Amino acid sequence: MTSTKTNPGNFFEDFRFGQVITHATPRTVTVGDASLYTSLYGTRFAVQSSDTFAKAIGYPRSPLDDLLTFHVVFGKTTPDISLNAIANLGYANCRLLKPVYPGDTLSSVSEVIGVKENSNRETGTVYVRSTGRNQDGDVVLEYIRWVMVRKRDNDSPAPEAIVPDLPKRVEPAEIGAAVPPLTMDGYDYDLAGSPYRWGDYEVGEKIDHVDGMTLEEAEHQIATRLYQNTAKVHFNQHTEAKGRFGKRIVYGGVVISLARSLSFNGLANAFHLAAINGGRHVSPCFAGDTVYAWSEILEKAELPGRADVGALRIRLVAVKDRDCSDFPLKTEDGKYAEGVLLDLDAWVLLPR
Amino acid sequence: MTSTKTNPGNFFEDFRFGQVITHATPRTVTVGDASLYTSLYGTRFAVQSSDTFAKAIGYPRSPLDDLLTFHVVFGKTTPDISLNAIANLGYANCRLLKPVYPGDTLSSVSEVIGVKENSNRETGTVYVRSTGRNQDGDVVLEYIRWVMVRKRDNDSPAPEAIVPDLPKRVEPAEIGAAVPPLTMDGYDYDLAGSPYRWGDYEVGEKIDHVDGMTLEEAEHQIATRLYQNTAKVHFNQHTEAKGRFGKRIVYGGVVISLARSLSFNGLANAFHLAAINGGRHVSPCFAGDTVYAWSEILEKAELPGRADVGALRIRLVAVKDRDCSDFPLKTEDGKYAEGVLLDLDAWVLLPR
Amino acid sequence: MTSTKTNPGNFFEDFRFGQVITHATPRTVTVGDASLYTSLYGTRFAVQSSDTFAKAIGYPRSPLDDLLTFHVVFGKTTPDISLNAIANLGYANCRLLKPVYPGDTLSSVSEVIGVKENSNRETGTVYVRSTGRNQDGDVVLEYIRWVMVRKRDNDSPAPEAIVPDLPKRVEPAEIGAAVPPLTMDGYDYDLAGSPYRWGDYEVGEKIDHVDGMTLEEAEHQIATRLYQNTAKVHFNQHTEAKGRFGKRIVYGGVVISLARSLSFNGLANAFHLAAINGGRHVSPCFAGDTVYAWSEILEKAELPGRADVGALRIRLVAVKDRDCSDFPLKTEDGKYAEGVLLDLDAWVLLPR
Repeated sequence: MTSTKTNPGNFFEDFRFGQVITHATPRTVTVGDASLYTSLYGTRFAVQSSDTFAKAIGYPRSPLDDLLTFHVVFGKTTPDISLNAIANLGYANCRLLKPVYPGDTLSSVSEVIGVKENSNRETGTVYVRSTGRNQDGDVVLEYIRWVMVRKRDNDSPAPEAIVPDLPKRVEPAEIGAAVPPLTMDGYDYDLAGSPYRWGDYEVGEKIDHVDGMTLEEAEHQIATRLYQNTAKVHFNQHTEAKGRFGKRIVYGGVVISLARSLSFNGLANAFHLAAINGGRHVSPCFAGDTVYAWSEILEKAELPGRADVGALRIRLVAVKDRDCSDFPLKTEDGKYAEGVLLDLDAWVLLPR
Repeated sequence: MTSTKTNPGNFFEDFRFGQVITHATPRTVTVGDASLYTSLYGTRFAVQSSDTFAKAIGYPRSPLDDLLTFHVVFGKTTPDISLNAIANLGYANCRLLKPVYPGDTLSSVSEVIGVKENSNRETGTVYVRSTGRNQDGDVVLEYIRWVMVRKRDNDSPAPEAIVPDLPKRVEPAEIGAAVPPLTMDGYDYDLAGSPYRWGDYEVGEKIDHVDGMTLEEAEHQIATRLYQNTAKVHFNQHTEAKGRFGKRIVYGGVVISLARSLSFNGLANAFHLAAINGGRHVSPCFAGDTVYAWSEILEKAELPGRADVGALRIRLVAVKDRDCSDFPLKTEDGKYAEGVLLDLDAWVLLPR
Repeated sequence: MTSTKTNPGNFFEDFRFGQVITHATPRTVTVGDASLYTSLYGTRFAVQSSDTFAKAIGYPRSPLDDLLTFHVVFGKTTPDISLNAIANLGYANCRLLKPVYPGDTLSSVSEVIGVKENSNRETGTVYVRSTGRNQDGDVVLEYIRWVMVRKRDNDSPAPEAIVPDLPKRVEPAEIGAAVPPLTMDGYDYDLAGSPYRWGDYEVGEKIDHVDGMTLEEAEHQIATRLYQNTAKVHFNQHTEAKGRFGKRIVYGGVVISLARSLSFNGLANAFHLAAINGGRHVSPCFAGDTVYAWSEILEKAELPGRADVGALRIRLVAVKDRDCSDFPLKTEDGKYAEGVLLDLDAWVLLPR
């Protein structure tokens, strides 16, 4: 007698506009997760590394890395949203809204905010707004994501197409909620690793983050399981060997975290990733690739009512197997240059 | 001057019926171990993942994964019991008896409950009952294990053969002590990841757990060292290259944990592994293997005096490099099918 | 517009006698780090493994492994001291001065205590005394290290040569501060894993630690990032492929930790590494190498005013891809034998 109790994942027909999906497995995040995060990416931002440093500027203790929060909240959505996804098409309006500390318990809910069948009638695009909450029900993270999902049956009727309005960027007035009011006279720039504050950066400035990090199969699997992300392509060499690339694909979030960690060299005081305006995983990353990164300052913004921190909008680009001294991005025909892995548009906060 | 202070391990002659062996290196288990356990196996059972979820049903906080307890208690026994073992022959009567929380300190003691020389006079079978205790001296885990151990000297006289009575299965009345009385109206089936309770499963039901996980050398070594298991075959490529398989052998407990973790897909509410009735490592697992799993419901049992949880006796089968849609187990001649790694008989508990 | 905000590292000309460098990124060390340390090296010393064991002899709880403290303090110095280093020439006078517990925050400062240009005028030797402190400003670790550093410009004038007096060994009166006064009647030798105390070892005794551990690329990278060590040679296969060895070089501290961990088999009661008198990384270690170790007792010392612990001065030798039953060290011509990785001279403490 064969059971039907396993999760087949949702197909395009299963998503309805307005539907709310509670994702499984809430997760208490701990200092153990923080240690693993450090060991997997080598992150060095002082606020997240040192309780003493964090307290000196007004945090009760070190918050967890913002991307750890993102990955945990995101990971929960994979069994319901992207198990039958063909492609992760984009992100928008991702905002960190409350600091997360060791001992907090994170859970995720997604609301379907758009559905649109593709003209081939085999697939459709699903737009969801996913929300991560802590044990008190406070929202710690919110983001919109759209994925291309297979239909169960090509003959199913198409739903009414609803495509949400996607903001090109998060407004400066909407960011910074995850940073409590800080007393920046307690901020030690020697310990932070750089003298450069918000005011020292200029729009148009490009920063080569110099260092490269080679990724191993065990490393990205350990990272992705830590987030309880279940997407099959990251873990199963037996099936991936017969797949498009012949090998496992690294979870895109690992590339984001590596790039963010490498960005310390040049952006050491950008201690908080406040928002992701948009992002594109330009090409897949595999074990054995060496990841480099560079950033461009796209925009500077003051935050309403805040004299402690200012925001830089950065383009954070990750590239594989080549250094970034020439800031590789696109070729003359407008296509991404070979080796570009990630093109991320984000707001980071620095002391003013 | 050469020292004789290293541990040569025990040979068959060193084990005497009734002997009690206190194993070295008690271990305080922490949230750090819990994070590593999640990162190594991707386990998703809500009770062990979320303090909030655990508290809502009556735990003081999230208990550690039952198999983490097993591996830590087991690991301590390896330097004394199995350093000169040729084969790990079996397990019986393994019961989890008390929840283990971060901060608890585990230690292990083994009692020799049987010895029997083999007819070749070169080896013998040793039966031990190993007991794991917490810092208060409470027994948290108990199991019987038998191993084939080399003799130091083939001419040593054979001891009187004593073979203990080994129960084929743990009685339902003997399981569940590691689960406090729970208030199941606090159990959220959405957060747990499945609507199926104890009553929804039927004897004979077979569940393909669908997903596969490819194991890397670094992963099983990190796992096995976490348990302070010292068995040489898992760690030393220099000697294993000349050995029977030409490579390191994955600790069998890693396969059990992977299979248990994969079983979430179909058995998400089986939040507690209460007992192992018996188990066989059918064939060795190596780095590079992709592990799949399936389960069969062998038996259902109520627990005396408990309305909160019910027990399912499952056969949990792990297989490598093939999916489990046809539930691979044995061939027509009664031998295990190619690729079968593990055939485990266990009791798991679910909400009623 | 290209940024100049990245860290180019210091060149020989940048170091001045008497200069004090505050290193970036203080680090709160936690039970998460302790778990990772265990999982990476399989260490089994009872004092660092069990709160219960540690309390029974007078610690408030388990201290962190001494080498974890060393690696974290050392790691912070790499961006400032050794980013442009050609070679790590030596260590001296390394002393553990205070126990470090989970929750403590470590930071590092280095003072330049010597500079000497080399005759080729392309490089120079820089001597630093690095100091690790906890959140209260107490020194937990101190050591001298000297490195060969590239000059920015070969034509820069040579500074006045100053070479510090380097002690050949730490005096016994100067060690042990990191161990509180202990009540050794609470020390359980069964749980510790060996009956041999300080008095049982003899000068000249050689101990083969027997076991070997094969190192994987992911393992040493995870370890070295945990310490926030940024030395490029450990992480970047893309550049190292074109380098001298064609592959990544394992951080020498990983070899020290592996050797120390293997030394449990023969030195199980040497629970504290109190000082490193000197050390040499004889040859590079790479992923795939199997590390073995042996020790020789060089000296025994009582500690002034202490009846609880005694000191053994050991030579701890790590070797790759061969066992240590013949205690490999040097060949007849006085050169190190093939395969020797590490020749470390250290003080360890044992119960008396």
